[in-house]
Amino acid sequence: MADPTTRIDLNSDLGEGFGRWPLGDDDALLTIVTSANVACGFHAGDPSIMRRTCETAVERGVAIGAQVGYRDLAGFGRRFIEVPPGELADDVLYQIGALEAFARAAGGRVGYVKPHGALYNAIVRHEEQAAAVVAAVRAFDPGLPVLGLPGSAWLRRAERAGLTAVTECFADRAYTPEGTLVPRDRPGALVHDPGVVAERCVRMARGEPITDVAGDPLVVRGDSICVHGDSPDAVAIARGVRAALEAAGIDLTPFSRV
Amino acid sequence: MADPTTRIDLNSDLGEGFGRWPLGDDDALLTIVTSANVACGFHAGDPSIMRRTCETAVERGVAIGAQVGYRDLAGFGRRFIEVPPGELADDVLYQIGALEAFARAAGGRVGYVKPHGALYNAIVRHEEQAAAVVAAVRAFDPGLPVLGLPGSAWLRRAERAGLTAVTECFADRAYTPEGTLVPRDRPGALVHDPGVVAERCVRMARGEPITDVAGDPLVVRGDSICVHGDSPDAVAIARGVRAALEAAGIDLTPFSRV
Amino acid sequence: MADPTTRIDLNSDLGEGFGRWPLGDDDALLTIVTSANVACGFHAGDPSIMRRTCETAVERGVAIGAQVGYRDLAGFGRRFIEVPPGELADDVLYQIGALEAFARAAGGRVGYVKPHGALYNAIVRHEEQAAAVVAAVRAFDPGLPVLGLPGSAWLRRAERAGLTAVTECFADRAYTPEGTLVPRDRPGALVHDPGVVAERCVRMARGEPITDVAGDPLVVRGDSICVHGDSPDAVAIARGVRAALEAAGIDLTPFSRV
Amino acid sequence: MADPTTRIDLNSDLGEGFGRWPLGDDDALLTIVTSANVACGFHAGDPSIMRRTCETAVERGVAIGAQVGYRDLAGFGRRFIEVPPGELADDVLYQIGALEAFARAAGGRVGYVKPHGALYNAIVRHEEQAAAVVAAVRAFDPGLPVLGLPGSAWLRRAERAGLTAVTECFADRAYTPEGTLVPRDRPGALVHDPGVVAERCVRMARGEPITDVAGDPLVVRGDSICVHGDSPDAVAIARGVRAALEAAGIDLTPFSRV
Repeated sequence: MADPTTRIDLNSDLGEGFGRWPLGDDDALLTIVTSANVACGFHAGDPSIMRRTCETAVERGVAIGAQVGYRDLAGFGRRFIEVPPGELADDVLYQIGALEAFARAAGGRVGYVKPHGALYNAIVRHEEQAAAVVAAVRAFDPGLPVLGLPGSAWLRRAERAGLTAVTECFADRAYTPEGTLVPRDRPGALVHDPGVVAERCVRMARGEPITDVAGDPLVVRGDSICVHGDSPDAVAIARGVRAALEAAGIDLTPFSRV
Repeated sequence: MADPTTRIDLNSDLGEGFGRWPLGDDDALLTIVTSANVACGFHAGDPSIMRRTCETAVERGVAIGAQVGYRDLAGFGRRFIEVPPGELADDVLYQIGALEAFARAAGGRVGYVKPHGALYNAIVRHEEQAAAVVAAVRAFDPGLPVLGLPGSAWLRRAERAGLTAVTECFADRAYTPEGTLVPRDRPGALVHDPGVVAERCVRMARGEPITDVAGDPLVVRGDSICVHGDSPDAVAIARGVRAALEAAGIDLTPFSRV
Repeated sequence: MADPTTRIDLNSDLGEGFGRWPLGDDDALLTIVTSANVACGFHAGDPSIMRRTCETAVERGVAIGAQVGYRDLAGFGRRFIEVPPGELADDVLYQIGALEAFARAAGGRVGYVKPHGALYNAIVRHEEQAAAVVAAVRAFDPGLPVLGLPGSAWLRRAERAGLTAVTECFADRAYTPEGTLVPRDRPGALVHDPGVVAERCVRMARGEPITDVAGDPLVVRGDSICVHGDSPDAVAIARGVRAALEAAGIDLTPFSRV
Repeated sequence: MADPTTRIDLNSDLGEGFGRWPLGDDDALLTIVTSANVACGFHAGDPSIMRRTCETAVERGVAIGAQVGYRDLAGFGRRFIEVPPGELADDVLYQIGALEAFARAAGGRVGYVKPHGALYNAIVRHEEQAAAVVAAVRAFDPGLPVLGLPGSAWLRRAERAGLTAVTECFADRAYTPEGTLVPRDRPGALVHDPGVVAERCVRMARGEPITDVAGDPLVVRGDSICVHGDSPDAVAIARGVRAALEAAGIDLTPFSRV
């Protein structure tokens, strides 16, 4: 039985369609996750999708996060772009502001910021871009938490700048013995068995060790667990994770409201 | 000598460059006007230009308005687009929210909304699109004034919806005997003499008649006078207008702060 | 038994995804149709999708048509845009040229032009825009056939300009007694029964009357039959149409190769 | 007196405006240069600008080159983008095809390819992206020459692939003793004196040494000299270069027609 204070957040990327092109089953995922990373129009997400996603999130008590990305519709924000830091900060502030308008109109607000795709990956190590995204969040609201990878330049700089840095771990990604993610193009990078994924999430929520890619125990910590939204079986896996966490008596609450 | 209560606002379109491409002399115009209609990225204005324009406007006490437009960089927002009203409302809300982030970061806020180009023209008569823009402003902030053409569907619907509707007249456009603008492609549509433009503005500010295109007196009222920002002699004309208004003892104040 | 000379073309919109967002089952449809209207990047279709669609079309002997549209990714080209005719002609020529590069690289060439969405609808009556698209086709290659609605300004002007105008009829759209399409928002606008759709196509190919929306016989002619590509049952319906035409001994051949 | 066979090409970036935003004095430069690198719409240049630039170039006997770039209007193609090579090749082929349509409509054709901005810089060393651009040119036309920096991966791979690789040198950039360009952010990177620029061009055309940044003689070779188009004094400098070359009896001919 879980300690009564055991609590976790579940986050997923949502609102990632554009115009005529839908992506993922947002409606189903918004019954499962506690935090929705909503795309803000630069790499995915048009204004009408943003509005609808915010409305549904607010209705269901799901926290709204700004999923900010590079200006790259054609590449879905998955291509690193050497944007000068000042321009990147402005691009990020623009996106947060746009999403805030929809969040407020729906009766909520933007509760955190989580960069997307190549930007997420870049600011693990790219100090100037990490600093730029931090500066944008601070310019918007120094009280806004940020979500990211433990040990990243992004979270380190966010903390130094006085922001609340929130860590995430991954439901279905394998970990190396050093606690980093196994790169996606390596064998065994993804955990496919829904039962295993669910069990790992319970362990991660409790601070218990999971099994790393080498077969050894590894403690992986995170304030939030990221479940993927756009794979064919995304909804089934996420549902399994939620059910297992609930069955284990773990409290599912948006980290941004704790 | 002007009545001590005589007061007028001067507005101009600003921040209309994009990326590598500048447009107009924003820095000079921000020493002249009292209200800056700042482009929001859909037809012009990138995030960095938006930030800089907001910063300078706040420094100089110039009010910031959201110059919202159709999603049309290639056409500078000058092409009518039959956007479904719901999507148009979302596009407008997105733009206002984005600008608000820069205005707040600079220590100000968005003080009003003025549609741009083909959208401005469309909502003089296009009831559905006018209603959509009104809905977006209300969703953002029902206390936000809107600026537009007297007699337009836009201002009529805004008033009915409880918004503060502010009218504008034009420094250098000729008027018909009916008080409408002479279309730009007609002879005599523009007043070119800077002295005449300045004198007309003083008369409009005082509620005194100007001369219409037929040579007869016509009273043209407006809470704000629009001066153009992107013609070669824009700055000189605007400077002349401001000097004449000041010399006439007319109080130049942003309408959104009255 | 069909006259040995009875021949028809089947066309469908293809290559309409963009970046991360797929649309429709292009691979299946390219085993069914004889002419592929390939989106050219302005309303849908990125360069990589264009290349792959051209390669598959050439491999399977399917003719490649330029599905040109307004510059409107967010609206999928379904919003009328009042583009000045000169700019529209340039936009269309740009798109045809881009597609030609992929068609040639794949060992084929652009065989015809069919406008998409709101542009298709606009140039049924909008004389200036119809003339602009005709001018663009002529500028590219005066020998290139164009595909469209019988009686449209588009085909009328194309013929006058010396282009080969090819008419199309619709597999699953109901017709009025006057021979025009029942608008999509009216009851009965679409024929849903795959068997009925297939039988109507055989009749249209043979010049035999179908049943109009009022229940009366109506002869609908067309050099090509348009089957839709993006509805859930698009592939099944198209496959049924092709099977029925083949069973009836009708020759399925790209009109652009006749 | 020049050897009768001394011949040089002058190239410049042209057609780099977009929509409402002009850039540079294309009309003047098209009276000076022999090769026009025409932007193709991804980082600059809309279809109408492309058409007009091609028409003027053909009228005046100026060769048309495809100035291809990353898909980056907001950054003017000056930001490196980690586009996967296959997608980059498709983006480049798309742009060449689009420009070819305007070149042909104007009575000319695309005579060469010169990448722009960050892509130009990237493929000096980025082997995969260099190979991708080479593949695109080959797919379009294996007979098309390519223009670039001596010693770049781009020209080396182009040559190996059987393309004609043409080198360029720079009218107003300082060179290191090793023959590479002094980076723009270093002191002395640019030569500002129009007379010196013109004289250097004559020497480069003749194969005579110029003075490097250290003050020593250096022979810089190139089949084409690049003059910049978008600085305030671009036209004056380019005019001076042309006059000096003509006065020296050097034959100014597009390299793509030799």
